[in-house]
Amino acid sequence: MPLSKKKTATETVMGMDIGGTKTKIGIINREGKVIGFDSFSSLGEKPFPNFVKQLKRKFKAMCKEIEEEFQILGIGVGAPNANYYSGNMENPVNFDWGDTVPLVASVEKALGYKSLITNDANLFALGEMEYGMAKGMKNFIVMTLGTGFGSGIVVDGKLVFGHDGMAGEMGHVNVNPNGRLCNCGLKGCLETYASVTGIKRTVFKLMADLQIASSLREYSYQDLTGLMIAEAALEGDPIACRAFEYTGEILGTKIADAAAYFSPEAFILGGGLAKAGDLLLKPTVKSMNKRLFKAYKGKMKVVISGTGSKYDGVLGAAALAWQHFG
Amino acid sequence: MPLSKKKTATETVMGMDIGGTKTKIGIINREGKVIGFDSFSSLGEKPFPNFVKQLKRKFKAMCKEIEEEFQILGIGVGAPNANYYSGNMENPVNFDWGDTVPLVASVEKALGYKSLITNDANLFALGEMEYGMAKGMKNFIVMTLGTGFGSGIVVDGKLVFGHDGMAGEMGHVNVNPNGRLCNCGLKGCLETYASVTGIKRTVFKLMADLQIASSLREYSYQDLTGLMIAEAALEGDPIACRAFEYTGEILGTKIADAAAYFSPEAFILGGGLAKAGDLLLKPTVKSMNKRLFKAYKGKMKVVISGTGSKYDGVLGAAALAWQHFG
Repeated sequence: MPLSKKKTATETVMGMDIGGTKTKIGIINREGKVIGFDSFSSLGEKPFPNFVKQLKRKFKAMCKEIEEEFQILGIGVGAPNANYYSGNMENPVNFDWGDTVPLVASVEKALGYKSLITNDANLFALGEMEYGMAKGMKNFIVMTLGTGFGSGIVVDGKLVFGHDGMAGEMGHVNVNPNGRLCNCGLKGCLETYASVTGIKRTVFKLMADLQIASSLREYSYQDLTGLMIAEAALEGDPIACRAFEYTGEILGTKIADAAAYFSPEAFILGGGLAKAGDLLLKPTVKSMNKRLFKAYKGKMKVVISGTGSKYDGVLGAAALAWQHFG
Repeated sequence: MPLSKKKTATETVMGMDIGGTKTKIGIINREGKVIGFDSFSSLGEKPFPNFVKQLKRKFKAMCKEIEEEFQILGIGVGAPNANYYSGNMENPVNFDWGDTVPLVASVEKALGYKSLITNDANLFALGEMEYGMAKGMKNFIVMTLGTGFGSGIVVDGKLVFGHDGMAGEMGHVNVNPNGRLCNCGLKGCLETYASVTGIKRTVFKLMADLQIASSLREYSYQDLTGLMIAEAALEGDPIACRAFEYTGEILGTKIADAAAYFSPEAFILGGGLAKAGDLLLKPTVKSMNKRLFKAYKGKMKVVISGTGSKYDGVLGAAALAWQHFG
């Protein structure tokens, strides 16, 4: 009896995480247990209406497989360039779904439940606050260093959305007015340095600038991954080590800037590049401490997120749903 | 019958603004009318207990002069380096009052009313929200460009205090890691460029770098004021004009960064340097637009505060008191 509305049925929400490659959906109960889960290709279906049809099919199949009786109180969705206020994805450059994607309206119509969206970095923040390292914190900032750089900012226990729903774009603060060209069209955005793509660019710059032997010289730009750079750094490769030093120095400077705005309790790093752990963390903390305003010295933690399960995104999306529909 | 607690007495709060030079106190009614006002030298009395004695004398004298019956519901205080949570001034470098000044405890004991403090830039923000250009706004940032650079940040209708009460130090975000030495000990803080002191330093740098005639070459560093630089720029003096261009370019870049964090509706500029109006505003807006993340284009106002009365500080402090004791 899935989808039952009986009072005795387990209360759940649905969490949905639309990534550049995969979309994950899950049914989560009040205790944070994932009682149903599935995923499918985000880009397999174009245009957008086909994605919605596929979502509906997957949702129904997932619900059928859940054995206990449950009811869904609402849906939380994380998606790139999602605007909390409008319910739309706005200019999602990596999706071929148009300039303005009416995500909330489409999900509500297709699945029949009240829905809310925010971007993936905000989901990460909510997940950390509900289930992760930010438990009990009211002021913290999460950063995802993946292909791009996402950020989710929590002030006094609430996500910062700004007046238009689009706050939290720390990836586009300026490192150098004449710096690297960013996908957004600006020059020198933080994301062009502190991300998997950013460190690849740094490695290539260092290979161009320096006459030092490096195992990374064997790889094309296309083939080089963040993991390869991390592995090379662990083996002492001088280009890879310098690339992490440089990345951490820039990231630490910008974290010190963020501290001056928000004075948060912690900065939590996630995403592919954060998996490098101390390779990234040590130069970042060193640089942050060097640039930190004296009133904040010794007060701020920089940590790597302890999460990394396939459920992270849907749990964060569920946290959004619980906040509003629970 | 001042200080009467009768129900028929006008309900008021006291606002107090401790500046580097002067301390202003005022009694303000619910309509924002200042029914009593006085000021005295902040630094005339040392150590701190003498300041408190002088405050008590001035407070009593001010209250005696008010003709209508009134009662005081609480006191709001603005002071440099004030910590909202602890009630202390923390390391107020320009005051000879010690490292930790127990301001709230002292004011409450001396005057007998519940008190709250925050820094002067936060007062400015509250004043703008209650009586000024930010009326009806829930997300905006104020900046005071005076001797230093203060900032007050409002997110979703509330001041951002951070986890320790010390958020909103935009003056200490980094412009250039190898830049000008700041009073705080860091290098390249925004305050060393975008403030009255900052533009003076820029004028002196330009006079050193360039071989251009300028009326400003007649003045010593001690004698040169922000007003002189503004007047020279209005007369077309090339050094003064370039100094405003340079200041605006740096300020605009950092405003674009702040937009990426907060996506506010407006940035409001105040303080001595903001009196230069378009001289500062035009290059600032131009530079901001150049660096603004595309999602924010056309959405953000940068304005010069319309206030500038001697009551500004006490009105902001009164707004703080009304929020909590009203």
